[in-house]
Amino acid sequence: MPTDSLNTARQRIQAAYSPEVFQSLGESLISRLGVHLGELQQRGQSVLNWNLPEENLSVARECLQRSKTSDDLLNRFQDLIETAIERGHNLHHPRYIGHQVPASVPLAGLFDALGSITNQVMAIYEMGPWATSVEKALIERWGEVIGLAPGTFAGLVTHGGSLANLTALLTARNISLKNSWTQGVQNANLPVLVANADSHYCVTRSAGILGLGTEQVIKVRLDHRRRMDATALDETLTQLRKRNTPIVAVSASACATLIGAFDPLQEIADVCERHGVWMHVDAAHGGAVSMSKKHAHLIDGITRADSFICDAHKTLFVPALCAFVFYRDKQHRFETFQQDAPYLFDPSAPGMADVDGGMMTIECTKRAATYGLWGVWSMLGQQIFEDLIDVTFATTQLLYQKLRAEKDFEPLHEPECNIQVFRYLPDEKYGLDSKAICELNRQIRRTLMESGEFYLVQTNLDGIGTLRTTVMNPLTNEEDLDQLFSSIRRTAEEILSQ
Amino acid sequence: MPTDSLNTARQRIQAAYSPEVFQSLGESLISRLGVHLGELQQRGQSVLNWNLPEENLSVARECLQRSKTSDDLLNRFQDLIETAIERGHNLHHPRYIGHQVPASVPLAGLFDALGSITNQVMAIYEMGPWATSVEKALIERWGEVIGLAPGTFAGLVTHGGSLANLTALLTARNISLKNSWTQGVQNANLPVLVANADSHYCVTRSAGILGLGTEQVIKVRLDHRRRMDATALDETLTQLRKRNTPIVAVSASACATLIGAFDPLQEIADVCERHGVWMHVDAAHGGAVSMSKKHAHLIDGITRADSFICDAHKTLFVPALCAFVFYRDKQHRFETFQQDAPYLFDPSAPGMADVDGGMMTIECTKRAATYGLWGVWSMLGQQIFEDLIDVTFATTQLLYQKLRAEKDFEPLHEPECNIQVFRYLPDEKYGLDSKAICELNRQIRRTLMESGEFYLVQTNLDGIGTLRTTVMNPLTNEEDLDQLFSSIRRTAEEILSQ
Repeated sequence: MPTDSLNTARQRIQAAYSPEVFQSLGESLISRLGVHLGELQQRGQSVLNWNLPEENLSVARECLQRSKTSDDLLNRFQDLIETAIERGHNLHHPRYIGHQVPASVPLAGLFDALGSITNQVMAIYEMGPWATSVEKALIERWGEVIGLAPGTFAGLVTHGGSLANLTALLTARNISLKNSWTQGVQNANLPVLVANADSHYCVTRSAGILGLGTEQVIKVRLDHRRRMDATALDETLTQLRKRNTPIVAVSASACATLIGAFDPLQEIADVCERHGVWMHVDAAHGGAVSMSKKHAHLIDGITRADSFICDAHKTLFVPALCAFVFYRDKQHRFETFQQDAPYLFDPSAPGMADVDGGMMTIECTKRAATYGLWGVWSMLGQQIFEDLIDVTFATTQLLYQKLRAEKDFEPLHEPECNIQVFRYLPDEKYGLDSKAICELNRQIRRTLMESGEFYLVQTNLDGIGTLRTTVMNPLTNEEDLDQLFSSIRRTAEEILSQ
Repeated sequence: MPTDSLNTARQRIQAAYSPEVFQSLGESLISRLGVHLGELQQRGQSVLNWNLPEENLSVARECLQRSKTSDDLLNRFQDLIETAIERGHNLHHPRYIGHQVPASVPLAGLFDALGSITNQVMAIYEMGPWATSVEKALIERWGEVIGLAPGTFAGLVTHGGSLANLTALLTARNISLKNSWTQGVQNANLPVLVANADSHYCVTRSAGILGLGTEQVIKVRLDHRRRMDATALDETLTQLRKRNTPIVAVSASACATLIGAFDPLQEIADVCERHGVWMHVDAAHGGAVSMSKKHAHLIDGITRADSFICDAHKTLFVPALCAFVFYRDKQHRFETFQQDAPYLFDPSAPGMADVDGGMMTIECTKRAATYGLWGVWSMLGQQIFEDLIDVTFATTQLLYQKLRAEKDFEPLHEPECNIQVFRYLPDEKYGLDSKAICELNRQIRRTLMESGEFYLVQTNLDGIGTLRTTVMNPLTNEEDLDQLFSSIRRTAEEILSQ
């Protein structure tokens, strides 16, 4: 390659890496986001900026096509930021009450940005000494808040709840089915995974990924509150043991996604201990109740599980993704993988395995995924997490009371946390049958979503199509709930009068 | 819970979510990072800020313990940022020439921060309409740059190369072993995965995770340049077919981590086609050569693979993590998982499966992982990626030439990309045997790393302990290389004179 063209390339790179340009664009970004957050808190914009996929895709394609000279970098940057904001989702709008993804604490995003801009990563301690240390301190601290005994447990952080469940269930598989790591899942007596019938889809997917087979997941009967029935679990395990069926694990939920029901973990732990089965808890959403004096009882017994997961990017209100896996017994921490990688793991420095995170995670290179949580915790203390849980749970209780009080609304359960499933019941004069009511609720949701007035979701509860909300923004208040009721009523009338 | 304490909690939350506080801290962060980047470019700081794990952990613990009043939020924030910078790794220092993690384009970090601060996520289109669209536009565009035919292929983005390889190999397993998704890996004739002998450890781990077993990975012989030998592959597949052994896939490397050797993909594709075997390529590091007219030939033939992966967070110089999986035939895109999740995937909106990313990824909630890449591409055009490849590869060639010219250094291969393995050979007067020379090289590396003068790594090449560099910072220049030589010599003399 001629020196000339390399030199030109070097000049372009110098410009792209210019600290001055970075600073000027960075200031512009922060200023724009400050205004944006303020507008959202005033409910001044749409919640979701709805556009059809093909329309957004075409704009995204066009962005990649245009190229500008370095003279107008700031203008170009501002245009792009504006496009992303205009076409993105506004989780920080108090009328965002949709999926279990939070209006994150804005400060957490700044700490995350510190990691991103300086590209702090992990796998081995050397590559991310501070990222690794922060993560280890948080594992220790959160584990102790949950009630694990200091020094006895281990943990890791990974990119999301699905990956966290997969990692823990892989550990369980390797322990329950000896040699399955090295020799594969080869057993004439097909092994099973026993799970809460409302488990997140990633639990069944884990069985598919791990070579067990999705059909080898046995779903345990739920009680009237959609919690795993411990007696039914006991019967299931008894039968499986009688048939000599290998049991990989029992996977409980705290809580299950659908209505936010918390399994009775103490009872499940009793059953698992009796049968000698690995107990796992998917506490992706609910693990954060450990921070609240009022609500911690919901996960009572979780410290008896062999493994459990908690998503900080759900109910600790930090940006995605920051999922924790905990192993009650730290001896299990290296059962997940058992391998060498000489260029990574320095044989001249034994004892580093415990600080080289890659030994325990599916990721090799991993983001500094806990910078956001570390920053919020260090700035505001543990108190802020209790506040966030208590306030969002209280708002959901208020929603429930309001739903009960109105004859054209039906709550489909009493909320245990910040999840509420309900539906709108139109006046009998319209003569809608059960199926038509489901369809009406679907249409209401879609209309509200596309209008940007509210963002809520839908689900299917025992064949009934319903509305579903999760209060994931602590700034959602009573006025927002009242507005939700009137918006739903207005939308229903518009649909029914067509 | 008493209304009073809820109100107090609400006040603390209001303060934590204050747009004004966000803006003030954000400006302070950007300003600090601008100065930091400038200092690093002047080589004014250490590369790695080395501290023992226990020391860093103790500081990280302490941060979580202290709690301050909201009055001094800015001071507290600045303290924490300072701590993270002082104890972190400086990949943006031009003397960082270590693992395959780049000194990322700083602008990419700003776009990533936009996603983080506003918590843009995906799984379903609704939740991240812009994040989804940007990702899809990039999959299209990069796929076409690589040479895939428009409209015929599919892709996804996931959190890192290990997860990307796992996803692609899961797809291969589901297709190669019918019913393995639903019924598990149950085959009397144990299935195998055939791989490059220098494959990244995640390939063997994938076999362990997927229920095949790590011992079921057959490593194909390498040629004299450490590339998979296509003739040996042919022999391996012929024997396996003769024995009716199910073959999940052939996993080639472009390039393998160790010395950066690119497999002969055209020849491997010929062999795989002849035997009717799924061809996968781990092009985590090398996929980016597609951007360079000079180096694209290295992955010639990759478009014949059934699946391959490319990490934008390696050689497209964006922050971690942003890994692409490509399927040559878009019909394979839903083979990875086959499941329902009614609360996510809206049955009233058929056709959304193609825009609901969660249908194809192990993650359910996923970060807006491509904001950084989208921003850089849209700001600076495709040219910047060609520049980054050409410059870092040219710097590595220069390093190689210098190593050859010096009698006390030995390059252990001619570099094909930006990876160079070499060692220091001390004067014969010291009478060091082969083992002692390996040990000396290890000591040199550790000394340089801990001093913060350079960051490079080590590896083991056919039993020889060596030094290993990857030029992952485009600002690394000839002067840095000359300084590397003198630092190594000085360090060696210090060690040998002890």
